Amino acid sequence: MKGLLQFLIAKIILLALAYSVVTCYDPYPFKITVLCKDPKLVTSNDFYFSGLNTPGNTNNRLGSSVTNVDVRRIPGLNTLGVALSRFDFAPGGQIPPHIHPRASQLILVLEGTLLVGFVSSNDYNSTLFSKVLYPGDVFAFPVGLVQFHANIGKTNAVAIGAVGSQNPGVVPIGKTLFGSRPLIDTRLLVKAFALDVNTVRYIQRVFSSEENIVTPIVN
Amino acid sequence: MKGLLQFLIAKIILLALAYSVVTCYDPYPFKITVLCKDPKLVTSNDFYFSGLNTPGNTNNRLGSSVTNVDVRRIPGLNTLGVALSRFDFAPGGQIPPHIHPRASQLILVLEGTLLVGFVSSNDYNSTLFSKVLYPGDVFAFPVGLVQFHANIGKTNAVAIGAVGSQNPGVVPIGKTLFGSRPLIDTRLLVKAFALDVNTVRYIQRVFSSEENIVTPIVN
Amino acid sequence: MKGLLQFLIAKIILLALAYSVVTCYDPYPFKITVLCKDPKLVTSNDFYFSGLNTPGNTNNRLGSSVTNVDVRRIPGLNTLGVALSRFDFAPGGQIPPHIHPRASQLILVLEGTLLVGFVSSNDYNSTLFSKVLYPGDVFAFPVGLVQFHANIGKTNAVAIGAVGSQNPGVVPIGKTLFGSRPLIDTRLLVKAFALDVNTVRYIQRVFSSEENIVTPIVN
Amino acid sequence: MKGLLQFLIAKIILLALAYSVVTCYDPYPFKITVLCKDPKLVTSNDFYFSGLNTPGNTNNRLGSSVTNVDVRRIPGLNTLGVALSRFDFAPGGQIPPHIHPRASQLILVLEGTLLVGFVSSNDYNSTLFSKVLYPGDVFAFPVGLVQFHANIGKTNAVAIGAVGSQNPGVVPIGKTLFGSRPLIDTRLLVKAFALDVNTVRYIQRVFSSEENIVTPIVN
Amino acid sequence: MKGLLQFLIAKIILLALAYSVVTCYDPYPFKITVLCKDPKLVTSNDFYFSGLNTPGNTNNRLGSSVTNVDVRRIPGLNTLGVALSRFDFAPGGQIPPHIHPRASQLILVLEGTLLVGFVSSNDYNSTLFSKVLYPGDVFAFPVGLVQFHANIGKTNAVAIGAVGSQNPGVVPIGKTLFGSRPLIDTRLLVKAFALDVNTVRYIQRVFSSEENIVTPIVN
Amino acid sequence: MKGLLQFLIAKIILLALAYSVVTCYDPYPFKITVLCKDPKLVTSNDFYFSGLNTPGNTNNRLGSSVTNVDVRRIPGLNTLGVALSRFDFAPGGQIPPHIHPRASQLILVLEGTLLVGFVSSNDYNSTLFSKVLYPGDVFAFPVGLVQFHANIGKTNAVAIGAVGSQNPGVVPIGKTLFGSRPLIDTRLLVKAFALDVNTVRYIQRVFSSEENIVTPIVN
Repeated sequence: MKGLLQFLIAKIILLALAYSVVTCYDPYPFKITVLCKDPKLVTSNDFYFSGLNTPGNTNNRLGSSVTNVDVRRIPGLNTLGVALSRFDFAPGGQIPPHIHPRASQLILVLEGTLLVGFVSSNDYNSTLFSKVLYPGDVFAFPVGLVQFHANIGKTNAVAIGAVGSQNPGVVPIGKTLFGSRPLIDTRLLVKAFALDVNTVRYIQRVFSSEENIVTPIVN
Repeated sequence: MKGLLQFLIAKIILLALAYSVVTCYDPYPFKITVLCKDPKLVTSNDFYFSGLNTPGNTNNRLGSSVTNVDVRRIPGLNTLGVALSRFDFAPGGQIPPHIHPRASQLILVLEGTLLVGFVSSNDYNSTLFSKVLYPGDVFAFPVGLVQFHANIGKTNAVAIGAVGSQNPGVVPIGKTLFGSRPLIDTRLLVKAFALDVNTVRYIQRVFSSEENIVTPIVN
Repeated sequence: MKGLLQFLIAKIILLALAYSVVTCYDPYPFKITVLCKDPKLVTSNDFYFSGLNTPGNTNNRLGSSVTNVDVRRIPGLNTLGVALSRFDFAPGGQIPPHIHPRASQLILVLEGTLLVGFVSSNDYNSTLFSKVLYPGDVFAFPVGLVQFHANIGKTNAVAIGAVGSQNPGVVPIGKTLFGSRPLIDTRLLVKAFALDVNTVRYIQRVFSSEENIVTPIVN
Repeated sequence: MKGLLQFLIAKIILLALAYSVVTCYDPYPFKITVLCKDPKLVTSNDFYFSGLNTPGNTNNRLGSSVTNVDVRRIPGLNTLGVALSRFDFAPGGQIPPHIHPRASQLILVLEGTLLVGFVSSNDYNSTLFSKVLYPGDVFAFPVGLVQFHANIGKTNAVAIGAVGSQNPGVVPIGKTLFGSRPLIDTRLLVKAFALDVNTVRYIQRVFSSEENIVTPIVN
Repeated sequence: MKGLLQFLIAKIILLALAYSVVTCYDPYPFKITVLCKDPKLVTSNDFYFSGLNTPGNTNNRLGSSVTNVDVRRIPGLNTLGVALSRFDFAPGGQIPPHIHPRASQLILVLEGTLLVGFVSSNDYNSTLFSKVLYPGDVFAFPVGLVQFHANIGKTNAVAIGAVGSQNPGVVPIGKTLFGSRPLIDTRLLVKAFALDVNTVRYIQRVFSSEENIVTPIVN
Repeated sequence: MKGLLQFLIAKIILLALAYSVVTCYDPYPFKITVLCKDPKLVTSNDFYFSGLNTPGNTNNRLGSSVTNVDVRRIPGLNTLGVALSRFDFAPGGQIPPHIHPRASQLILVLEGTLLVGFVSSNDYNSTLFSKVLYPGDVFAFPVGLVQFHANIGKTNAVAIGAVGSQNPGVVPIGKTLFGSRPLIDTRLLVKAFALDVNTVRYIQRVFSSEENIVTPIVN
């Protein structure tokens, strides 16, 4: 008993100390539990991440990979309002239509040929703004609008993304509509997309078994 | 010559006067050209809109209607960060999956029975948060996430929406993906949604012929 | 002793665990102690409130009732920047002059006839903007300005309010000036409002005994 | 005709030139028509104001004077989010209860003895926070709450105010309620403040004839 | 053992209770550990600071003194977006070139004659905006630009500064470049400023031994 | 006369048309005169920039080059809160100590070896946070703090920078202090940096003749 007690007390003290630093602001719900450190304990490593030169694994149905460097990988980004990503595409690969709910984005192509685009909101006539990008080209995607990037060249493509939030979030349309946990009622989607039940069920099966589109962060 | 001159001058004066009021801030691209009035010319009507007691027309494929009261209908809302909407649903009607890119939303059911929900971002596991709402019920939808509202009762349904922006925008997923102007490349959508070409073309035909989901504002 | 110890430790662990979720940002002082949940523990109920179809009790001196649905009633509203209210008015009832310190407001009349208005700041000449509203009418009130709503019809009136903050606050002028706890010095108010001491003392007695104008939230 | 033509053209050119500079953002309605200058034309004088060492005229009913140095007096303050004021008080003078709708405030007493205070919002029980201030004392007033400053010493008092907005606005409660243009309906105020008609009419006469509480800016 | 145990538990409970109030938002990294109080425990003293009438000690190499009244001295300033400072200058004294990373500033001269200025960003041609200020003069300094204040009169000078943040921060250029802890690599500075190694080492010795330019806060 | 008249009228019409598009918000002074387009005239090119694959010219005293892609190069970035840069370094080259007044930054090394760092504000003890970066490494620099990047490898280095503003600005410390237009008073700098007059004059000569550190934008 005494051993357990000591263990518990030690653990509690650690927990309590962990909270002698302020917890951090993040301006959106479902927020990441990043704790601010005591300024005296902050080091250069809190502003550092390594490994974005490694290509992501594009061996999946979409032939693409997304590696995000946001506040979960660089704690010092908390409140700084900026993050980076690396995008890899196999030939024919794509990052399918998706939305960043909390930031606009710039993309810079390093290698390959990308067809990119976004669609303006319904108030502005659902206009498609699209462009074929080559190395050195930059394109901007406004916050909250549907965007996509597709490798239309014959080689791999690599691009860097920059966003104006340390926690931009990503809403991949396919996974969100057809692979949420639990699933959205099939009949609702049948009517929304003017499809028959079997087609919706088929798409739901496809997306239910797929992983998240962003490379998971293992802490 | 003199007639033309007079005409030109008159026109110029009008144009110049049109700009003797300050142009207004709107924090997003594709902004609405709402001009701020000279404070001396502002009247109560600049803060007023009439007619939200009139049901919208739900005689369309989706059986629903959205009437927005935002800065385009109440110029005085400029910079105030709030707007209202009225939603009407025929039995079985729905406001299909959509995103507001620039505001979170609250819905209040006045009549009928609605199934509503939103899906969290991929970073939070694409979780569906859903609820059946009855008159007097309120539900919150975070900014930039896919949401939907469907009438699952046997009568008409009416709801009021409130958003924290005078210009929240709306991105209806179906219309945006399959009915943009011009269309997104069919092959890209085939791969994104794991569908065959004919099915995508069929959905594109459905959405290309449909109107915007929000009641147009005629000024 | 050992029992107490165990009790204390259990309690401490609970307290510690309660803080293993981040505490939440609220952009203003006197903030509400709403704790953010661990995303895994969030449910649909965190975005839900029920009961706004029930009329408030207008059996008071002012003949009105305000029921707020803000972050205290819907925890998921935290950081979302929007809230709703229901206003009830007996014939002749009013929501007396007040200010929302942290949000602009839109009002939508559902039933009855309301005289509403706000006064611009002194820099803009203390101009009254006023309107009589009928069902379906909407009116906007800018943040931080004195506003009022009065039922001038012969029946009950009902209205919905929307604000661009999850915690807008309310400063009822009468209660604030003449019924604060403790009271503002009577002589200061005598001079400020050019009244005699007895009149100020009378008004102070009226407001000191009155309840808050918003329906209290019992958790 | 030619004379008129020349006049018109000259006027048009002036108007057009007036708009060859960008118009400025101001985050609130009733905004000030401050034009941003072409950066090449900006000089040190755009960031400069002179004369805050001159005492204001306290020869009025309230025995006080307010001189604001905001974006209207220093155009370069536009978007900078800060402004200053000088307050003068005769013995017994006061700046009566008022609200700044768009900024919190700090006051620094330079001379004399001030009783200051503010009342928290109704959600926090309308609590009075009050203090007697002497030279060198600083006190903070949160945005949108009713505040007051009264000279309770036997000599003149002088204070400096700082606010976190270039255009904070001021809502003097007395003038706003009882001296707006046009007046708020007397019966509404009778009920709101539990006063008789004659008393309200008397207060309305007092405030209708009084000037603004801030020293007017003559351009 | 039991005594220690009791002590530890008591301490833990205190720590835990300390966190039964919400921790506070501060929008920048290296944030100050200011805890928000339970609203019921807030008093007028949380909005109050005393002593800004006392001249600072200018007996240092630069002949100046800065006393900041920000959120560390007035906890109630948290989130209010405003702070004050007192600047003292001996004859010939200066507040050397520095930057406020998180707020624009206004300065008001109370006594003496100050030469002040700031330099626009490189995008705008590194233009110097400068002015000689006398008592009653006000000057504005935009956020993030290098500014300086020098007493060019024959007497002491006193000024008040106002900033639009409760935690503006200060980056004194000399101390930052030549006296950081640890030092920036000498060779890097040699190249950056086109100086020889000995001169850089000399400047590094000067700044390494100097105190911070702001009067330390002892709690 | 008639010729002049026609010329004037043509010019006026052009000017007037130039303002038939709304002018744009930019949240800081010295703002860029970017005009917003009529939504109907916006094209994909408004979101596009080409050429960031071209190395910048590092043939200068500092051996470095900065190419910014901000709102001046991509008009559609207006209000989107993000921008990109390309940095080139010859062996031994550096981007000397500088500050971004309006955004935090992330850097990603593509080629070479960089020593980077920033110094915390004086309130946090002027602490140097520094790191040697290799390809694929990312480092974060908080807004308004002095930062530097130096190529310490034997080959050229290339890096990409991302910032959370469409108009971050840059304040190169050397040029700002010693090469502003006009120059800061030599005696003030002598005292600020504990240098003799001749050394300051020498540094002023060096910086006065140098170009801006960012590659100029020619429109």
